[in-house]
Amino acid sequence: MNRYKYTTYAKLPCFDHEREMTMRGLIGNGGMLAMKPIRVTIWNEYVHEKTDLHVASIYPQGIHHAIAEGLSPYGFHIQTATLEQPEHGLTKELLDHTDVLIWWGHLAHDQISDEIVNRLQARVLQGMGLIVLHSGHFSKIFRTLMGTSCNLKWREDAERERIWVVNPAHPISEGIGEYFELQTEEMYGEFFEIPTPDELVFISWFKGGEVFRSGCTFFRGLGKIFYFRPGHEAYPTYYNLKVLRVIANAVRWAGTSHGTMPTFGNTAPLEKFR
Amino acid sequence: MNRYKYTTYAKLPCFDHEREMTMRGLIGNGGMLAMKPIRVTIWNEYVHEKTDLHVASIYPQGIHHAIAEGLSPYGFHIQTATLEQPEHGLTKELLDHTDVLIWWGHLAHDQISDEIVNRLQARVLQGMGLIVLHSGHFSKIFRTLMGTSCNLKWREDAERERIWVVNPAHPISEGIGEYFELQTEEMYGEFFEIPTPDELVFISWFKGGEVFRSGCTFFRGLGKIFYFRPGHEAYPTYYNLKVLRVIANAVRWAGTSHGTMPTFGNTAPLEKFR
Amino acid sequence: MNRYKYTTYAKLPCFDHEREMTMRGLIGNGGMLAMKPIRVTIWNEYVHEKTDLHVASIYPQGIHHAIAEGLSPYGFHIQTATLEQPEHGLTKELLDHTDVLIWWGHLAHDQISDEIVNRLQARVLQGMGLIVLHSGHFSKIFRTLMGTSCNLKWREDAERERIWVVNPAHPISEGIGEYFELQTEEMYGEFFEIPTPDELVFISWFKGGEVFRSGCTFFRGLGKIFYFRPGHEAYPTYYNLKVLRVIANAVRWAGTSHGTMPTFGNTAPLEKFR
Amino acid sequence: MNRYKYTTYAKLPCFDHEREMTMRGLIGNGGMLAMKPIRVTIWNEYVHEKTDLHVASIYPQGIHHAIAEGLSPYGFHIQTATLEQPEHGLTKELLDHTDVLIWWGHLAHDQISDEIVNRLQARVLQGMGLIVLHSGHFSKIFRTLMGTSCNLKWREDAERERIWVVNPAHPISEGIGEYFELQTEEMYGEFFEIPTPDELVFISWFKGGEVFRSGCTFFRGLGKIFYFRPGHEAYPTYYNLKVLRVIANAVRWAGTSHGTMPTFGNTAPLEKFR
Repeated sequence: MNRYKYTTYAKLPCFDHEREMTMRGLIGNGGMLAMKPIRVTIWNEYVHEKTDLHVASIYPQGIHHAIAEGLSPYGFHIQTATLEQPEHGLTKELLDHTDVLIWWGHLAHDQISDEIVNRLQARVLQGMGLIVLHSGHFSKIFRTLMGTSCNLKWREDAERERIWVVNPAHPISEGIGEYFELQTEEMYGEFFEIPTPDELVFISWFKGGEVFRSGCTFFRGLGKIFYFRPGHEAYPTYYNLKVLRVIANAVRWAGTSHGTMPTFGNTAPLEKFR
Repeated sequence: MNRYKYTTYAKLPCFDHEREMTMRGLIGNGGMLAMKPIRVTIWNEYVHEKTDLHVASIYPQGIHHAIAEGLSPYGFHIQTATLEQPEHGLTKELLDHTDVLIWWGHLAHDQISDEIVNRLQARVLQGMGLIVLHSGHFSKIFRTLMGTSCNLKWREDAERERIWVVNPAHPISEGIGEYFELQTEEMYGEFFEIPTPDELVFISWFKGGEVFRSGCTFFRGLGKIFYFRPGHEAYPTYYNLKVLRVIANAVRWAGTSHGTMPTFGNTAPLEKFR
Repeated sequence: MNRYKYTTYAKLPCFDHEREMTMRGLIGNGGMLAMKPIRVTIWNEYVHEKTDLHVASIYPQGIHHAIAEGLSPYGFHIQTATLEQPEHGLTKELLDHTDVLIWWGHLAHDQISDEIVNRLQARVLQGMGLIVLHSGHFSKIFRTLMGTSCNLKWREDAERERIWVVNPAHPISEGIGEYFELQTEEMYGEFFEIPTPDELVFISWFKGGEVFRSGCTFFRGLGKIFYFRPGHEAYPTYYNLKVLRVIANAVRWAGTSHGTMPTFGNTAPLEKFR
Repeated sequence: MNRYKYTTYAKLPCFDHEREMTMRGLIGNGGMLAMKPIRVTIWNEYVHEKTDLHVASIYPQGIHHAIAEGLSPYGFHIQTATLEQPEHGLTKELLDHTDVLIWWGHLAHDQISDEIVNRLQARVLQGMGLIVLHSGHFSKIFRTLMGTSCNLKWREDAERERIWVVNPAHPISEGIGEYFELQTEEMYGEFFEIPTPDELVFISWFKGGEVFRSGCTFFRGLGKIFYFRPGHEAYPTYYNLKVLRVIANAVRWAGTSHGTMPTFGNTAPLEKFR
């Protein structure tokens, strides 16, 4: 069953099919600039929400649904996929038509098959953007792409988090001020065992005394990756407008154009040298 | 006199005034998405073209004019400014209405007043994009923003340059393939004494045996800076479509949104701690 | 007068002259490995300590003296210099014999002549290490090398700072644990308007709710720069053993070897191409 | 059998056991500074040299032996290990006593068991330095740590490579000049699908028209990684003194101290907040 896919959202004005979503405009030299909306797939393991009453009360239709609703004003073409679907909902066809994949997982990291992880890794290297949220730090796909343990400190104690912008030139920081606060969040603390981020956009302050590199970008192959820390399932984080704005900004950043697929292997010289 | 300013280009369809250039479209939730064109100012010292017959034969209306023409298909709002104008054409008003400034200079770096350099630096830190071309590596504004000598090796011998993409995930690399060639260019060679680029997009290969970090980005304050190597005045580099594409890509990248202007100085605590 | 220079420290066993400090050892192939101690110059404006009774009570002989004492177990060859000396104590000869310069200044940034700033910048680009402490973020030499305002938020309220290691592979993080605390420090908060650090080693947490990139490295020319946040003059920070350890680690890092001085300018091809 | 291990080299003066290799010196404050030599293990798959007469003629005792000989003047404590040994010679005990592991492999990447790869990855994250040479770009351990394909272009045509220093502040660039040349090498060309290096030290120029990021560092956990391009088995690259100097510099860099092993998982707050 597939309640949260395209067919559901297609009924909402914001999930109209691609042709109608395309913005068209006459540009200076008489050409037509067609702006296709970014195609976003929100993946959620969707387990907590069906097994924990408290989580279900916060996200009755799943975290993926809350994020999809929250992103609806931004003009993306949004689909969702969940673990329970065939191939975890991550078919080759879907990924080939996904510009940016958003990932939320926690309990079921091990249930993702290696075949799907390889497929995801290949698709990122081919140019699909990837936004990994919160507990997704321990997902197979994130650990595979990072090459490190991605381990960290944590504490679930409904404490205040204050997220500071440390690269205000970065488009992901648009519209959220110098910092924003989440009154109840799980703490994640350093050392966060990831590669040095290519760009560090946010640093979190926690009431209990820790800091965390909360917004990190990574270039990998043709793909752009963004890790964003907030989003414990037991708190209503994905209804926070600043959190949604960051995710929307990250979709736009990760969904920007990229270069040509490189060729690899044995290659003839471009200059004569004999 | 000011032949190359806004008033000239306003007659061309691509330099229509802002209101008409704005693309409008209905987005999903019924809101209106207004896309304003990026406001680009192309600055050129415009000396070689008026004093050297060979250069004049290549760029009869100046390098700034060639770049403006070359960028015209991309839908930007383009103005030009030159050294000879009052305040070198870089008035506060113009800069306040410039999203991205493109800079070409060579002979007259020292003629830029310190006041204008300070104005430019402040404006970059406030969010204006800056694209520095070729011999602009030695401009006051670039050296001031870099904090280093920006020195390099050079040789003017009409030799082949091959520019390789080394970050194909970066939007500046869009549409130019794995590499592109310029058959006659001045050589610039390492060591190029700049800070480590935040992102290295291109590396040049030269027939004579040198390499050069040819496409370098730098985040500074709210502003984004791109240094792009090619463009010796004695060769027709700014008619090359790949060169123009890189500049257009860089305009889009440097013209993306940024975060909020930070506050500085003495500040009250956000948490009670007494 | 020059109370804090070499001649003073030369009397202490740790400030013996270079020849005697040199460690010698037979290495594997019969060669002699001579390890010269790193030559450190500690510069202090030395104004607060002579004009403010509270500061004088903490650092009766000056901050530079406290740091020199604190570094004495590490085997460096240490000299000091202060603002009041001719050429601010920063003669060409001294700098030519300095491997790493440590900088503390606050009230008198503007009293440093541009000539000395140029001399310092050139010396860093030639390979001298530079460690800028605390309020030195606003020194002319740091702002010149960074190319940005180096502005930040601050609050002087004797609050707790906790400094977290975020790059434990970096030698500057050796021996200080996962974090360390300073019970009374001035707060510095983001946004800190510096270039993206080449390496981010520490992030500070402040009781009042802010974070700060506290330990930042920058490669510039042949030189290595380290900015380290702690050290308000009104608190006994430079007696803290962890703070001293970080400074000592940074001296060793900034004092490591570097490559050859590059040549710049017009250069003949290395390959025949005609 | 284990011909190339410690016991062999222990007969040479440079492979004396640790105690005798330790340099001792009286430092300033009367303490004893004991400098232990860096413990280097050189791993080689050692297949080409036993199956290809041309390669055997260049490296009759194996690439690992040539590198060990070449590094002997630098005072390291050197051991070697090869694929044919039990556990590929990479026992837990050996790795626990290895500060820096050098890796050369090509034909037999797939023969390394996943268990050993996991052991190597864990050991790097715990602080062991890793230097990956040439065709080791495709080794399991490098691909695992990078998280990307590590693919590239190549051509075996005995062509000239010129390796340029682009970060002369980095200690790995010490003593090799602005560039150095290898007259006959295999070409490796961009795009090299690795994460953005934390530090880019060298860029190669190839006669046939390509460039390559030849010297790349990566911080991972407590460990430091250096990838160095040259070293095709069919050419005498590992007898080149500049190549050996780079490897020795990299051993010293990767063997520098690091911070404390972090703790991970559930953690109590450091500040009271209830």
